[in-house]
Parts: sequence; structure tokens; C-alpha cells
Amino acid sequence: MSLLVQKYGGTSVGTVERIQAVAEKVAKFKLQGHDLVVVVSAMSGETNRLVGLAKEMQAMPDPREMDVLLSTGEQVTIALLCMALKANGCEARSYTGGQVKILTDDAHTKARIQSIDEKNIRADLNAGRVVVVAGFQGVDENGSITTLGRGGSDTTGVALAAALKADECQIYTDVDGVYTTDPRIVSAAKRLERVTFEEMLELASLGSKVLQIRAVEFAGKYNVPLRVLHSFQEGSGTLITIDEEFSTMEQPVISGIALNRDEAKVTIAGIPDIPGVASKVLTPVSEANIEVDVIVQNVAADKTTDLTFTVNRNDMLRAKAVMDAVAKELGAKSVSTDDTIVKISIVGVGMRSHVGVASEMFKSLAEENINIQMITTSEIKISVIIEERYAELAVRSLHTAFGLDKAE
Amino acid sequence: MSLLVQKYGGTSVGTVERIQAVAEKVAKFKLQGHDLVVVVSAMSGETNRLVGLAKEMQAMPDPREMDVLLSTGEQVTIALLCMALKANGCEARSYTGGQVKILTDDAHTKARIQSIDEKNIRADLNAGRVVVVAGFQGVDENGSITTLGRGGSDTTGVALAAALKADECQIYTDVDGVYTTDPRIVSAAKRLERVTFEEMLELASLGSKVLQIRAVEFAGKYNVPLRVLHSFQEGSGTLITIDEEFSTMEQPVISGIALNRDEAKVTIAGIPDIPGVASKVLTPVSEANIEVDVIVQNVAADKTTDLTFTVNRNDMLRAKAVMDAVAKELGAKSVSTDDTIVKISIVGVGMRSHVGVASEMFKSLAEENINIQMITTSEIKISVIIEERYAELAVRSLHTAFGLDKAE
Repeated sequence: MSLLVQKYGGTSVGTVERIQAVAEKVAKFKLQGHDLVVVVSAMSGETNRLVGLAKEMQAMPDPREMDVLLSTGEQVTIALLCMALKANGCEARSYTGGQVKILTDDAHTKARIQSIDEKNIRADLNAGRVVVVAGFQGVDENGSITTLGRGGSDTTGVALAAALKADECQIYTDVDGVYTTDPRIVSAAKRLERVTFEEMLELASLGSKVLQIRAVEFAGKYNVPLRVLHSFQEGSGTLITIDEEFSTMEQPVISGIALNRDEAKVTIAGIPDIPGVASKVLTPVSEANIEVDVIVQNVAADKTTDLTFTVNRNDMLRAKAVMDAVAKELGAKSVSTDDTIVKISIVGVGMRSHVGVASEMFKSLAEENINIQMITTSEIKISVIIEERYAELAVRSLHTAFGLDKAE
Repeated sequence: MSLLVQKYGGTSVGTVERIQAVAEKVAKFKLQGHDLVVVVSAMSGETNRLVGLAKEMQAMPDPREMDVLLSTGEQVTIALLCMALKANGCEARSYTGGQVKILTDDAHTKARIQSIDEKNIRADLNAGRVVVVAGFQGVDENGSITTLGRGGSDTTGVALAAALKADECQIYTDVDGVYTTDPRIVSAAKRLERVTFEEMLELASLGSKVLQIRAVEFAGKYNVPLRVLHSFQEGSGTLITIDEEFSTMEQPVISGIALNRDEAKVTIAGIPDIPGVASKVLTPVSEANIEVDVIVQNVAADKTTDLTFTVNRNDMLRAKAVMDAVAKELGAKSVSTDDTIVKISIVGVGMRSHVGVASEMFKSLAEENINIQMITTSEIKISVIIEERYAELAVRSLHTAFGLDKAE
């Protein structure tokens, strides 16, 4: 018997039938003797409907009122789920974020949780009730309703699990776990039983849309065991846990391979190689509110330097315009762009204690005649930029090279 | 410059365009220098949609969760109206019932208001903001959301006006005021400039669906000047006010004529005329949860008595079954029913100080050869039961007889 916080996303509660299916599932856990706190999102489509109404009222809807509006989505779901639980003979009580109360700052539409009062929830759990909490929302010091931004329901789940010292925070979604890579690219991709918070962060930021980065960070910080599971299929999912629980023997060198197709490359060539030049190039980019991912700088023989960085493809033309101005000012030779590239990353806490992971990666790509355009490394990740047409080939060959293919 | 509480019902905020029209109207009042508290209902259709979802979850939806669910309807409207007000350059802030806070008892789905904290609203008004409050909802001592039952938004408006000592509570609806009788029956019906709370109570309970009885009672109790107006047409509507404001000279004897087509008659004849027999007849009716309206008892020459009462037409067959059992027990002669009757009432505080009102009414009906089946009177009302086919004729002749026809 343990205390579980379960979070069901918008698709899992998207229809009357699905809410009923979730209720049956929760009731089953309850019958097994677990204490349950269930966090739910708005029924899928509802948030978009409300946003649509808001935009008809005001071109830029007032953030405070936007939160009043959007928070109704989850409020509908908690009430319906409690009714469905009671229809299943399971005592339940709903809580809005404000009722819990989940105290946040007053940054409407993107508030951050400051504290959670677990008193009422604890009393309901002790009374044998399932507690159903509206995800994505809280309340500020003045009693105004706030929301945590898209995907905030994951954060609500993790924060409640941390406050209640739950045994596990289970995120139910439409995939059955975290995979070594995208199964649509590599059919041999396998589900990971476990992954560390750090690896999950790298995988999430690289395009695995399974979990919100913020929730993973939060779970890591408060050491909340986090499990990703399929809402309506059996299975143990993927447990996201702290590093120390792995024994080095079991631990694979590489946990997963991420592919990011959203990047484009901008190169400014032939700029004077003097201190502060990188800042002169990149400050105008950030001032234009363009996020930069990979940055590589190389010194050429003629005392000039080339600087290449990647941005989101949607920002490439704006970045080019900024660079054209910078090039003029600094007397650079040229500015060029390329949006037919991808970023491939291998991620694994195991690479900390293994030498030769990078060379293994480069060798594997070389064997497929794939040219590497940029390289960047972190403690548990190596990313390369390659031509887009080699994306799938590169992922497949690395998946095999690092021994990630499914056992027969 | 005065403090106005304005209430707009579901039809008045039923679409994006109507919410915008309400916003423009409110902004105009604000520009004229008034302080404004605006109470709104859920967009028309929304409450029914939510009730439908609830019934799919649970045959008899849990009342606490029903309130969590239904209260989202008004919450959506307050947010949208505030956005629309801001788009009109009008500073505004929304409040749910809980945020105000409107404290109620814990009788979910039919809670009664216990107190209102006007502190926050007052601060916003002082800061020049329009305050938009969700009607129909409150919060109990434990912080659970409650609702006041259908039509509760009128009550919210009146209660806020009482708490804030507002100069007027304006109920905006789809009629332009209270009429001397139904204009669809008597084309000469005219709008009343004023009507007393007591008259309004009698008119409302007799089928004028303009205002909720509870809101009128509340307004009378706390002496809140209440005005009924059309949401989207100009006009001064009808002011519902206390008796004393009328001078007896201006005061008409009869204010209005109400027609109720929902009644049916049940007669039990030839029961022993002994003390307690009325109770023996009527207790089983109330135990069957059937509401009785008019009751008339007459003694016959043979020491037996006939007792006739009216019930809602939907309850007539059930009432008949109850009477058949009673008749057997008491040895009554017969039980008969009639659902082709109507009740016509003339209402007016003026009849207190005028004799001959009843005889004027009976004479007027006799001139049209309309037979009166039952009569019942109160201090400010005389009701008769007549055959249904004479309904319109009776209303028209009384309307003329009491001088209510529109001046040319």
C-alpha cells in the first residue's frame, strides 16, 4: 500500500467514455489499497475552445482574466471524474488549485508554484477518499486564479507528489514509456525501464514530447520518482529516477538517441578574431528574442574567425537579417544559412565513466559516409549537426552501434 | 453618480456578440460616472450542456461536484466580459462567488447566502474598476463551491446590492418591464412604471417569469430598489420598490392581472363533516410530495362536506390516486378531477384601502357569462378558478374593468 499521485492528460479525459475508463482504473488502484491523488487536465479541445472565445473578446486577452477562463477547463474535469468515481462506488472529492491551495506567484498564464498546503488533501486521504485535483492551476497571494502554462498539469502532479512525499508520481499519457529513440524511425527501438532525470531532461529538450521539461526538473530537484505510463494499456512504463539507484554494472553507456528536425544553421564568416567578438555577434540575436542552440567558433589561418550557430527554423530568416547588419558593422566576409540540417544527440549518464563514446559515435557515422558539420558535447550528451537527408540512417546506425536494438 | 448593481442573464450573454454588446452598455454607464458591479449568468445553453455531461457520469450526480461543475459556466462569462470591457477601454476585474466571498450554507445546488464580504469589491470600485461577479454561486465555510439554484443570479445581484448599499439593482432581461398582464393576451396591456415588492411577489408566483421570487423577497427584506429592464432596448423598465414610496393618490387599485394555466382541480365529495377531516385529506397529498395551491371547503346540508383543491396539472393523476385511497378510508361519495381550468388573479396593494374590489371582479366576469368555480383571497390578491376556454376573455374584461388599458 502506497501513496500514488496519478496525472491524466487531456486526451486521457477527452470524452465521457474516457473519463469513465479513468475512473474504473483509479477505482481499481484504490481497491488494491493504495492512497490516490489524481491530477487531471482539461478535456482535450476545451482549452483551445476557450482561447478562441478569449481572442474574439480581446486581441491580446488580459492575462488575469485568461487564467480565470482557462482554469474552468480542469474544473469541469475534476467534477466529472469525481462523479464517475462515485458511480464506481469510490468515495472522491475534487479540489481546484485554489482550494488545495497551490500558492503561486502572480505571473498570470505562466505562474510558478511557491508552496502547497497538503492539510486538506491529507485529511481526505485519511478518510479513505480519492482526491481529484485540477492540474495546471493555482492561486496567488491575493486570491487571483493563476495557471502554470501549457503542460502545467505534469508540474502540478510532481509538485503534489513532492509535497505529499508520495511513493510515486505516475504520468499517464498516450505512449507506454520513454524509448531509446523514436520507434517510427527505428523499429528496433525499445522502451527504457529506467532513465535518470538528467537523461530525461536531455531527451525531453531534444524532442521527446512525453513529459514537460519543467516537471522533470521539478521531480529531479525534489527527488520524486516519476513514471510515464500508457493511460489505457497495461505495462510498467518508464521510471524516471535519480542517478544513484543504478548500479554501474546494469547501466548502459547510452540510454537514448534524440533527433531534432527543427534546427537551422546560420554562419557568419571572416570576422576579426578579437576578444568579445562572439558577444558582438550573439547579443543582437538574443535581443531579437531568438533562441540559439548550438554554437561553434573556429579560428581560421588569416586571423579571422567563423562563427556558426543554430536557431529554430522559424527564426532563420530573422536571424539572417540580424547577421547581415552585424556583418556590415564588423566587416565580415559573408553570412550564410542552411535549413536542411538536423541535430542528433546520444544521451546517457554512462558516458561519464566511459571513454571513447564520442569516437565510437563519429566512427559509426563515418562508416555510413555521413559528414558531421558541427559537434557539441555536455557531460551526458554528444550532439552532432548533419545533413537532413541522413537523419534516419544516422539514428538507426547509432542505435545499433550502441547496442540499443531490441533483443530478439 | 450612483452605485449600480446590474445583472445580465444567460440570454443577454449567450453569444460573443451579446457579451460585447453588454460590455459596450456597461462602459457607457461607466463613462456617465456611475460605479458598477455587474453580475452575469452562464452563457445560455452552457448550464444544460454541463448538466448533460454530469448525468452521463452519474444517474444522480453528486451535489457537491455538481456545484463545482456548474459554477464554471458563470466563471467563463465573467472572464470574457472583463476582456470585452478592457477591449472597450474600461478597467475591470472578475470575481467568482468564492473570491468575493459570498458565504453560503452547504446545501449544495440550492444554497442560501449567509453573508457577503464587500471589502475587495469596494477597493476595486474605489480604484475606478468595473467589478464583474459570477452569479448563482458562493462558497461554504469549508471552501467548497456552492450554487444557489436556477435563477440564483438574480439573488446574487440583489444580495450584492444590499451588501454594498447600492442605489439600484438593475435586472436586465429579454422583456422591457413588468406588465399589467400578458401582452400576448391583452394587446392593451401596459408596462408598469412601478410595482411594490408584495405585488411583484404575487405576480411572479402567478406566472410572470420576469424575476425569481427569491430575489424579490430578498430585495423587499433589505429594501433594495430593484429595476427590471430590457438588455438591448432603451427604456426605464419597471421599478420594484417599497409600499411607502407610493402616494395613495397615484396608486391604482389593481396593478396587474396574472393568468396561470398550470393548475388542475381535484374534488372529494361527501366526506363526513367532522373536525380534522381537511387534514386527513391533505396530509397524504403533501406526503406524496404534491404541492397544493387553492383549497376550498363547503358544508352540504346532509352533514357531509366537499373539499376541492388545485395542484399542478402534471401531478393531477397522482393526486387522484391518493384521493381514491382517502375516499375509501373516509367513506366519501366520489372523487373527481378537472384539468381544463385556469386561475386568474388580480393583484394590487390598493385593494387594501378599497372596498368592493372583489364584487367588481365578480360582476365583470358575470357580465361575460363566466362561471366562477373557486375563489380565494389574500390581502392584496383575489384569485378565481374558471373554465380554461374563458381564460383570455376573462383577463381582457378584467383589464378593462379595472382601468388598466393603455391610454390612447
